[in-house]
Amino acid sequence: MTENLREFALKHLTDYYDLLRLPSISAQKEALPETAELLVELFNELGATRVEKLGSFESAPAVFAEFKGNDPTKTVLFYQHYDVQPPEPLEKWESDPFEPTIREGKLYARGASDNKGELISRLVLVKYFKENGGLPVNVKFFVEGEEEIGSPHVAQIVQENREKLAADACIWEGGGKNYVDNYQIVGGMRGITVFDVETTTADIDLHSSLASYAENAAWRLVRGLATLRDDTGKVLVEGFYDDVQPLSKAEEEAVFAYDFDLDVAISRAGLRRTLKAEHKLALVNEPTMTINGLTAGYQGKGVKTVIPHMASAKLDCRLTPSQDPKKIAQLIQEHLDKNGFEDLKVRYRLGENGHRSPMSDPFIQLVLAKAKDYYGKQTKYLPNSAGGGPAEVFSNELDLPIVILGVSYAGSQVHSPNEHIRLQDFGDGTQLLGDILVEFGKN
Amino acid sequence: MTENLREFALKHLTDYYDLLRLPSISAQKEALPETAELLVELFNELGATRVEKLGSFESAPAVFAEFKGNDPTKTVLFYQHYDVQPPEPLEKWESDPFEPTIREGKLYARGASDNKGELISRLVLVKYFKENGGLPVNVKFFVEGEEEIGSPHVAQIVQENREKLAADACIWEGGGKNYVDNYQIVGGMRGITVFDVETTTADIDLHSSLASYAENAAWRLVRGLATLRDDTGKVLVEGFYDDVQPLSKAEEEAVFAYDFDLDVAISRAGLRRTLKAEHKLALVNEPTMTINGLTAGYQGKGVKTVIPHMASAKLDCRLTPSQDPKKIAQLIQEHLDKNGFEDLKVRYRLGENGHRSPMSDPFIQLVLAKAKDYYGKQTKYLPNSAGGGPAEVFSNELDLPIVILGVSYAGSQVHSPNEHIRLQDFGDGTQLLGDILVEFGKN
Repeated sequence: MTENLREFALKHLTDYYDLLRLPSISAQKEALPETAELLVELFNELGATRVEKLGSFESAPAVFAEFKGNDPTKTVLFYQHYDVQPPEPLEKWESDPFEPTIREGKLYARGASDNKGELISRLVLVKYFKENGGLPVNVKFFVEGEEEIGSPHVAQIVQENREKLAADACIWEGGGKNYVDNYQIVGGMRGITVFDVETTTADIDLHSSLASYAENAAWRLVRGLATLRDDTGKVLVEGFYDDVQPLSKAEEEAVFAYDFDLDVAISRAGLRRTLKAEHKLALVNEPTMTINGLTAGYQGKGVKTVIPHMASAKLDCRLTPSQDPKKIAQLIQEHLDKNGFEDLKVRYRLGENGHRSPMSDPFIQLVLAKAKDYYGKQTKYLPNSAGGGPAEVFSNELDLPIVILGVSYAGSQVHSPNEHIRLQDFGDGTQLLGDILVEFGKN
Repeated sequence: MTENLREFALKHLTDYYDLLRLPSISAQKEALPETAELLVELFNELGATRVEKLGSFESAPAVFAEFKGNDPTKTVLFYQHYDVQPPEPLEKWESDPFEPTIREGKLYARGASDNKGELISRLVLVKYFKENGGLPVNVKFFVEGEEEIGSPHVAQIVQENREKLAADACIWEGGGKNYVDNYQIVGGMRGITVFDVETTTADIDLHSSLASYAENAAWRLVRGLATLRDDTGKVLVEGFYDDVQPLSKAEEEAVFAYDFDLDVAISRAGLRRTLKAEHKLALVNEPTMTINGLTAGYQGKGVKTVIPHMASAKLDCRLTPSQDPKKIAQLIQEHLDKNGFEDLKVRYRLGENGHRSPMSDPFIQLVLAKAKDYYGKQTKYLPNSAGGGPAEVFSNELDLPIVILGVSYAGSQVHSPNEHIRLQDFGDGTQLLGDILVEFGKN
């Protein structure tokens, strides 16, 4: 039934080039209403039964669309976003970032991978089924315009539109082929808590000749931070690991089978030191604590012999899906208080819950089976990625499994100049998605 | 013999206003050759037997002058500088910083205290003796033009002009009345070693989702630095205190009699924490280690979840006069190496030896006795100040005692807007210096 989908997708890709031409850069609030409006038109053309803008109409509304399927009892929700990262540095692009260009089997444009190319794959999919017997199941689109600036309004929009967004399963954006070109499916994301640690020891910086009696904010910060983590990366905060939940046996096996080569990672980044022997398990199911930045005193050229009166650090903790971002920040403050560093103040900046759909969920199993049919048994499954994203509010509010799969590959240069996808991946990924919908309609 | 010196000094202060009018800002290389040239003229007018520029003629030469005294077997060397700090912020000045102005018994100008006012005091002194029976002893002036930028050429100039500068004693610049208006004499300075500690853990910053295996330069720096000093301020580096030499009993008594009130220091700087009970002794004869600045990763607004690949700290150690700056930096590197932080590199920036003339030296005793005669027995003596300066090369190369005394007071706002001296201090300080020369000539 989806025999020609791959070819259809490649043929009709160009129908949606206008999406790639709009410079919808959320960080610069550029072309966002226009892109949302274009999406509304495209969804209407494709025969959506309902199209709506959700959230702020003036700035970057999310666009919702609903399509009826042959089996009206089943619904799949697609999460996408239409905003992109700024294209700078422009001089590093080999073609105009906002003029989609095909070279050597690759489609180049800002957003070609993240996330307009994939959005086009799903639009083409709907068009295919419109012309070939109809969608097997209901399909809903949620396309936001603020993903690249941290999805500040998604939680509220989802909470306010729970019934509209109701579905049986969600297919998330992102993903595709991994660095050894095996197709990869992901069942979740780690959470994160982001906070500052600050201390003030005086009203003003003092001359360092007074260091015999005047305490120093930088020393307080350094000594307090040093109590938080040991040299192996283990976090020394009481209760930090309490809410980490073990993986199932099947998930653990999937993690060990996951393609990750530490030596490759080391040589790519020129890494001088690594932390964990069991780095695959750690990436999926261990929380971390990272100093993102340190600031104190004089940082200019040459020498200035001052005692800094203020010092601060920016930190984040990547959390396993079962951990609570605010609770972790609170545990860290309690640790500092207990260890004589009550002058070091933890300032909570933001947090995002992690999320992990059980690998045993029937929809996840269906997706995995179809992917293995299409890409072969070397297809990989990761229970959750090392990074984060706003998926948890969907799984929590809508009570559905979420699976991440896409049409990109490890070389897509997401967020960088010359972002692209390979046309073969675009065709294959669209074909797989069609196969999944058809299979879901059968059960 | 010096009966009218105080009045003479106050009357003739205005003769030297041109010195204060020249904006000889060494940090901006402004008006330095002109000021050196004016000094040459002034010294010649005063009847110097020898006047020479030492060091670089183009930029900021030091000016040397020699005056013969009635007792040709004794020589006192005056160390001064003619360069000043930039006057900014200009809007905070109540009168033009380069137009000397008297208001309510105070002389306002950039350099009025540091160091042109004091230089004028010593020029007026020579003029007085020229008109009143001649100088009791030989007097030499060494007036440099780079003190405010760290005296980069003084050591070389002194080494190359050892015989020219030869003297029996040196009277250094700076000082006067302390914060409770007692006159204060200082016999030395602490040394200093200034260095960076740097580490690099990768070629690039990495996304913090990789913190499960990728080590972080900021964590390395924080944990390494934390091993260097404890929470009481004690330095934990092996051998750090080995070369500290005890004060004599008389020096220790002088330190305890020194005017220093920790509560005043605390309230002035809004200090939240202090380190030492014996803070007077610590300020004089304990080395310190200070973090001057910390730099790593992202320090901008908001959040950036990166693993910094580089981190660095700027530090200084204030050293007691008997410690060697380079050796201390080396001990710190050895400590880091021994404690598993061989990736943290100590980069030596600069160092200055401290210096302390023995309080028992006859010239120091003579100065102290004359000061007590003039200012009363509440006059204080400090074996060395908490800060530093380029005195050690003079004591070391010329083998002479050095004593610091001047015509300023604690409220002189050195390096700040509205820098000034009180006319009474100018008169008194000049009178004392005359008494000292006369007494020195007698012995």
